Amino acid sequence: MADGTVAADQLRLFIERIERLEEEKKAIADDIRDVYSEAKANGYDPRIMRMVVRLRKMETHTRQEQDAILETYRTAIGC
Amino acid sequence: MADGTVAADQLRLFIERIERLEEEKKAIADDIRDVYSEAKANGYDPRIMRMVVRLRKMETHTRQEQDAILETYRTAIGC
Amino acid sequence: MADGTVAADQLRLFIERIERLEEEKKAIADDIRDVYSEAKANGYDPRIMRMVVRLRKMETHTRQEQDAILETYRTAIGC
Amino acid sequence: MADGTVAADQLRLFIERIERLEEEKKAIADDIRDVYSEAKANGYDPRIMRMVVRLRKMETHTRQEQDAILETYRTAIGC
Repeated sequence: MADGTVAADQLRLFIERIERLEEEKKAIADDIRDVYSEAKANGYDPRIMRMVVRLRKMETHTRQEQDAILETYRTAIGC
Repeated sequence: MADGTVAADQLRLFIERIERLEEEKKAIADDIRDVYSEAKANGYDPRIMRMVVRLRKMETHTRQEQDAILETYRTAIGC
Repeated sequence: MADGTVAADQLRLFIERIERLEEEKKAIADDIRDVYSEAKANGYDPRIMRMVVRLRKMETHTRQEQDAILETYRTAIGC
Repeated sequence: MADGTVAADQLRLFIERIERLEEEKKAIADDIRDVYSEAKANGYDPRIMRMVVRLRKMETHTRQEQDAILETYRTAIGC
């Protein structure tokens, strides 16, 4: 029973650490949403900003290659 | 108790209908994956094909507007 | 140039096959949603039905083991 | 042109703020993963810990109601 109590305490500590971190993560996700809202209020399009954020995460040559292939496919398909 | 049995049967029938549909949906998802694999074996890039599929779902004027804004943002940011 | 046309046609065929399959998949997803709606109209809780669908997908012994561990953790944490 | 430069700078500032926040969010997500790994190394099951975290987020009476309905459905279906 002593062991059970120790294990329960340990599990509780793990869960509580996770919950604190989840709260921090949620707070930052809220901050990100706020920046997009502020940008939107200034006339920017959040959806397209997200595309730019994703493109900037890529290596330059990967992004250039993606641009080229996408352009080729769109021309081929006519869209 | 008779009612309980009737309700259990009804619930089971709903669940079984959902399970059959989920199986059909999974089979189609597998077919889609197969087409992408076949396209890849023919030298196409599945990830960029997915972008084209998404672009084709959009109304022409919405897609053109998105293209224009994305181009403006990328030029502004230099990426 | 002839090659380019052939490749464009091949790409278009792949894209169109994917689009047809995506439509079929969407139709089935709509059917699933309809069954949940019908179940809800009969007094069942769709969210909990989804849990049951997930549990039924598991092997019996895996589900029993999960039940036992979850019960242990909930007792330890007191929730 | 001056306006264009101002707008470009403003967009860049928004994007950079978002990127910093995304990095912070990623760091916290990594921390959460680390806690689950540490718990796993201590013999706990991360997947079931996640269930407990989700259950603890719920109001007590909502969780109790969910428990009761799930129990009823499982008995009815026999799983």
